Amino acid sequence: MPASYAYLGPEGTFTEVALRTLPEVATRELIPYVSVQSALDAVRAGEAEAAFVPIENSVEGGITTTLDELVAGTPLTIYREVLLSITFALLVRPGTRLSEIKSVTAHPAAQPQVRNWLKKHLPDVVWESAASNADGARLVQEGRYDAAFAGEFAAARYGLEALETGIHDAENAQTRFVLVGRPARPAAPTGADKTSIVVWQRDDHPGGLRDLLGEFATRGVNLMLLQSRPTGAGIGNYCFCIDAEGHISDRRVAETLMGLKRVCLQVRFLGSYPRADAGPTEVRKPLPGTSDEEFASAADWVTRCQDGRF
Amino acid sequence: MPASYAYLGPEGTFTEVALRTLPEVATRELIPYVSVQSALDAVRAGEAEAAFVPIENSVEGGITTTLDELVAGTPLTIYREVLLSITFALLVRPGTRLSEIKSVTAHPAAQPQVRNWLKKHLPDVVWESAASNADGARLVQEGRYDAAFAGEFAAARYGLEALETGIHDAENAQTRFVLVGRPARPAAPTGADKTSIVVWQRDDHPGGLRDLLGEFATRGVNLMLLQSRPTGAGIGNYCFCIDAEGHISDRRVAETLMGLKRVCLQVRFLGSYPRADAGPTEVRKPLPGTSDEEFASAADWVTRCQDGRF
Amino acid sequence: MPASYAYLGPEGTFTEVALRTLPEVATRELIPYVSVQSALDAVRAGEAEAAFVPIENSVEGGITTTLDELVAGTPLTIYREVLLSITFALLVRPGTRLSEIKSVTAHPAAQPQVRNWLKKHLPDVVWESAASNADGARLVQEGRYDAAFAGEFAAARYGLEALETGIHDAENAQTRFVLVGRPARPAAPTGADKTSIVVWQRDDHPGGLRDLLGEFATRGVNLMLLQSRPTGAGIGNYCFCIDAEGHISDRRVAETLMGLKRVCLQVRFLGSYPRADAGPTEVRKPLPGTSDEEFASAADWVTRCQDGRF
Amino acid sequence: MPASYAYLGPEGTFTEVALRTLPEVATRELIPYVSVQSALDAVRAGEAEAAFVPIENSVEGGITTTLDELVAGTPLTIYREVLLSITFALLVRPGTRLSEIKSVTAHPAAQPQVRNWLKKHLPDVVWESAASNADGARLVQEGRYDAAFAGEFAAARYGLEALETGIHDAENAQTRFVLVGRPARPAAPTGADKTSIVVWQRDDHPGGLRDLLGEFATRGVNLMLLQSRPTGAGIGNYCFCIDAEGHISDRRVAETLMGLKRVCLQVRFLGSYPRADAGPTEVRKPLPGTSDEEFASAADWVTRCQDGRF
Repeated sequence: MPASYAYLGPEGTFTEVALRTLPEVATRELIPYVSVQSALDAVRAGEAEAAFVPIENSVEGGITTTLDELVAGTPLTIYREVLLSITFALLVRPGTRLSEIKSVTAHPAAQPQVRNWLKKHLPDVVWESAASNADGARLVQEGRYDAAFAGEFAAARYGLEALETGIHDAENAQTRFVLVGRPARPAAPTGADKTSIVVWQRDDHPGGLRDLLGEFATRGVNLMLLQSRPTGAGIGNYCFCIDAEGHISDRRVAETLMGLKRVCLQVRFLGSYPRADAGPTEVRKPLPGTSDEEFASAADWVTRCQDGRF
Repeated sequence: MPASYAYLGPEGTFTEVALRTLPEVATRELIPYVSVQSALDAVRAGEAEAAFVPIENSVEGGITTTLDELVAGTPLTIYREVLLSITFALLVRPGTRLSEIKSVTAHPAAQPQVRNWLKKHLPDVVWESAASNADGARLVQEGRYDAAFAGEFAAARYGLEALETGIHDAENAQTRFVLVGRPARPAAPTGADKTSIVVWQRDDHPGGLRDLLGEFATRGVNLMLLQSRPTGAGIGNYCFCIDAEGHISDRRVAETLMGLKRVCLQVRFLGSYPRADAGPTEVRKPLPGTSDEEFASAADWVTRCQDGRF
Repeated sequence: MPASYAYLGPEGTFTEVALRTLPEVATRELIPYVSVQSALDAVRAGEAEAAFVPIENSVEGGITTTLDELVAGTPLTIYREVLLSITFALLVRPGTRLSEIKSVTAHPAAQPQVRNWLKKHLPDVVWESAASNADGARLVQEGRYDAAFAGEFAAARYGLEALETGIHDAENAQTRFVLVGRPARPAAPTGADKTSIVVWQRDDHPGGLRDLLGEFATRGVNLMLLQSRPTGAGIGNYCFCIDAEGHISDRRVAETLMGLKRVCLQVRFLGSYPRADAGPTEVRKPLPGTSDEEFASAADWVTRCQDGRF
Repeated sequence: MPASYAYLGPEGTFTEVALRTLPEVATRELIPYVSVQSALDAVRAGEAEAAFVPIENSVEGGITTTLDELVAGTPLTIYREVLLSITFALLVRPGTRLSEIKSVTAHPAAQPQVRNWLKKHLPDVVWESAASNADGARLVQEGRYDAAFAGEFAAARYGLEALETGIHDAENAQTRFVLVGRPARPAAPTGADKTSIVVWQRDDHPGGLRDLLGEFATRGVNLMLLQSRPTGAGIGNYCFCIDAEGHISDRRVAETLMGLKRVCLQVRFLGSYPRADAGPTEVRKPLPGTSDEEFASAADWVTRCQDGRF
C-alpha cells in the first residue's frame, strides 16, 4: 500500500487545509489531483492509499461529483470525515487598494459566500470564475485579475496580501470532507460515530419511503443526512445517500442495515467512522431499548425461549 | 412426567371432544378438572403433563380465565391448539315432546348460541344456568329440568335423546382450545405456525401502541389476535395477548420478539405451535424480504461489511 | 321522553351505587332490569331515557355483554361514564360469627376479588354463585347461605350486618359504568373528554392494524382502550372497541375519525363524554401541532394557498 | 402584467427549446436572462409574467440554484413543468472533420452526458468549459474552439454543422424545467397533477422524518421527489423540497398539507400543476379511502355524529 493520500488540488485550497488537520498526514505524501474523479480513481487503481475530497457544503449542499462516485462504480469506503469552517480573505498583490479593484476571481463555489460582501464593498467589480480558489490566487499573482477570494493561508504561497479576512455571507458556513479508501474493516467505534449508506428502493408506492425510514426509527437510529441522487434512469428515479448515527458494530445499526438489505432493491455500505462534530463527551444517549446491552439481552432471551428455558 | 392430560371437565363437554381430536390422547390418561385454574395448577404442580382448556370462542371472545392464567402466575406454554365448530343439540329424556318443555338448562356460554332458536321454538321456556353443559344434561337425566343444550355426543352418556341437533345462532361458531404445559422447547416449525406472547408497554403516549405494532410490521409479521387484558392496576392499565403468524425459529419472528423485548416493559413468550386453521398447503407466503433466507443473507452481508469484505 | 333511567339491577348493587353518583338521578325514576340487554332494550324501545350498565372492570376486563350490545344492533350512544372503586363487605345475619360460616355466596364476578381473603380466613367454606351480589344478600337473609359478599350498603336493605368490610384482593379494583342512550348530540367538550368508537378493518395484512392506529398517532390522539371483540364470523375475525382521548368536536379527533371512516370497512361512533378519571386541571396538553387553533390555522393556510394568497 | 416570459438564456439552449413547447409562448415575448437568479428576480420585480428555468436533471440531479431560489427569498410559485429529453450534437464549423478536432467546449453540465462518447471518439481532445452550450457554439463560430456540444437546433443559429447527433451517455437523460411566477391560484386540477412544497422540521429525533412522511402515507399520497437542501445554518441542517402526487384541491393533498403545516416548523407551498410525465389516461388511481368522494363522505359522517344524527 503506497503511503500517499490523493486530494482534490491544487495546493493551497481549503481541501488541503482540511486534510492537514489529520494527524496521520505527517507520515503520508500528499498528492493533489485535478478532480474528485481522478483522486478517487487513483485510490481505485492502487496509486494512493486514500483520497481526500469535499462531500458537502453547508451553503451549496452535497458535492454531487463526490456523492455520485461513491454511489456508483467500484465500491469505496469513507474512513474519516473533517469539518472545516469556511471564511474567505480578499487577496491582492501587495499595495493594491480596495478602490483599485476592478476584477475579482475565485472558484464558483465561493460566490454564494462572498456575494453580499461584494455587493456592499465592490458593487461594480467584474467577477470571473477560476478553476479553484488557489488558481484564482495564481491568476492575481500573474496580474490577470486584481483580487481573488481564497483562504488566508493562500496569500503566502502566491506572494499576495490579504486586504480583508473573515469574509462570509453565511454564518456557520462549513465544508465537510471525507477520506475515502478501498473497502476495509471500519475503524473501531468511538461512541460518537456515523454510518453512511446508499439505498435503492424496490418500488414506489405511497408510504414506501416512510416504511424504509421506519427501519431506522424502529431501532431508534437517528438520521443525520438524507440526500437523494438520480439513478440515471430518468426523472423521478432516485437513490438515497443516508448518514445515520452510530457504528455498524452497534447492534441497533447492524440490525437496521440488515432490515434495509432485506427490503431494499440494493444497499451499498459506505463506511462507519467518527463524527467530526462530536467529541466523546457529546455522545447521544441511545433511546431506551436500543443499547448494545439491551440488544444482546433480548437476543439471549429469544434463544432461551427457542430452547424452552424461560 | 406423568402420562396424563388434565382438561376442563366434566366429561361429555365440547372440551373433551376437542381434546380427543389430538392423536396422542390414545396414550394419555385424560383427567377432568372442575375449573381452568385447577387444570392449569395440576400442570404447574407436575400432576399432569399438560392441560387442555378453551381460550377463545368466536361468539363470546376470549376466555378470560385462561388468558389471565397464561398472563400471570408461573409461566406456562401453549403446545398445541384445536379449533372445534360448536353446534348444540336439545337433549331430553326419551319420549319428551317439544311442547312439553317448560325449563331448559346449559352453561351460560351456550346462551348466545341458542337464544334465537329458543325465541322461535320455545319462547316461554324458563332458562336455568348449569355449571357445564354436561352437568345440565345430568340435571335433565335427574328430572330437575326438561331439556338441556349440549353436544349431541352427551346424549348417550346421560341416557337422553336429541330432540333437535345442529342448533346455532351464529354460523361459523367455533371454540379454540389450547394444550398447555410447562415451558419447553417449541415443537419444530411446520410452515404454518403461530406464536403467542403477552406484552406490557413501557408507558402510554400517542403512538405508543402503533410503534409497538410497528415491530411486527417492520419485519412483515402478520397479527392474528390482539386481546387486551387488564393488568389489575386499575381501569386504563392493560397488557396485550398477541398471536402472530410464524414460529419463533423463523428469523422474522425472532427479530420481532427481540424488538419487543427491548422496547416493552415486559414480554412473556407463550409458545410457537402449528396453526389449527391451516394445513401445509395454505401457508401464507412471507412478504418480500422477510424469508429466513433473506434474513440470513442480510446478516451475512452486514458481517462482511463489518469485516471490510464488501 | 320518559324521565327514567334503566339500570342493571337488582337494587342494592354496586351499579345502583354508581348510578346514584350522577346528580341528575334526583329527578329521574330509576328502574332496575334483570340484564344488560333488557336495560338497553328499554332504551331502544323508548321506555327509558337512558340505561346505566357496567362496561369494564379493572380485574375481569371488559363486560362483553355491554360491549357486544354497543357494537351490534340498533346504535346507542354513551352519554356519561362513572368509575367506582370496588371493595366488599362480608354480610351475615346478625349474630353470626366467622367460625360459624360454612357457605358463602355472591355474583361470580366478585370471586376474583375475594379469593385470597377466603383462602386465608375461610379456607373450607363452600362457594355458591348468586345472580347478583344483592341477590346473594337476600339468600343469606332467607337463611339459604351463611354469608354473602356484597357492598356494605346492602346490609341495611336485607337486615344483615357486615362482619368485615374493605375486602379486596386487588388494590385499585374499579368498575367503569356507562350511561347509554339513543343517538344524540354529544355533551359539550369539557377539556377532559374521551371518544368511543368501534372499527372493523377492511382486510388483514401485515401492518394493517399498525396503520389503523397510525390514524390516531398522526393526529397526536392518545388511545385509552383497545378491546378486540369477535365479529361472529369465526375465530380470527375481530372488530375493535376503542376509547381515545378528546372530544369529537376537537379537530384532531374529528380528523382522526374521518381518516378511520375512509380506510376502515366500518366505523361506529359510540359517543364523546367527560372522562371520569380527570378533573379539568388534569387535562393532558395536546402534542405540538394538534390543538384546535393549530388545526384551524393550518386549514386557513391551505385555503389561502388554494386561493393563491400566500 | 407584462406579457413576457423570462428564461435562462442565452438563446439557442435546451431551455429555450423546452420553453417553446408551451402553447402560450406564441403570445409572449421571450426574454433571455444570464442566470436563474436574474430571471426569477425579473418575475419578483414585476418585469416578467413568469420565468422558465431548469430545476432538475436526470443525470446531475437538482439544479440547486433554482431550488434555493424557490426555498428562500420572496415566495414564487410553479405554474407548469416541462420534461425535455437531452441528447447532444457535436457542432463544428462547416467542413471540419472529426480527426481535426483538438478542442471541444460546452457547459459543464453537458460533460457527464458526453464523457464516454469523448473517451471513445476523441480521447485526446482538450475540454474547455463554456458559460452555456449556446455560448460554446458561439466560441466555435468565432474559431476559439474546434467543436461544441449543444442541441442540434443551435447549429443553424451559429452557422455550424452537426458532425454527429444523438450523443448521450445515459439513456433517458431528461431535464425538467419549471415555469415560475408570483403566487397565484393554482391551475385547475387535471387529474394528473403534482404539488411542490418545502418543509422545515421542528426538531431532529429518531423517527422524526419518518413521522413527517407519515403525513403523506396516512392519506395515501405518493411522493415523487424528496430533495434535501441545506438551510444555511451549518452542516447537518436541512430542509426538504418535496413533490407529491395530486393537486392541492384534492382533499387528500389538502389534508396532508394541513398536517405538515401543524407539525413542521415551516411549510412553503410552491404550487400545484399538471404532471409533465402523465396524460389524463395515465392517472394513478388513488388508494382505497383516499378519493375526494370518500373524504367528503367521511367529513359528512363526522358532522352527523357531532350533531347526534347517526
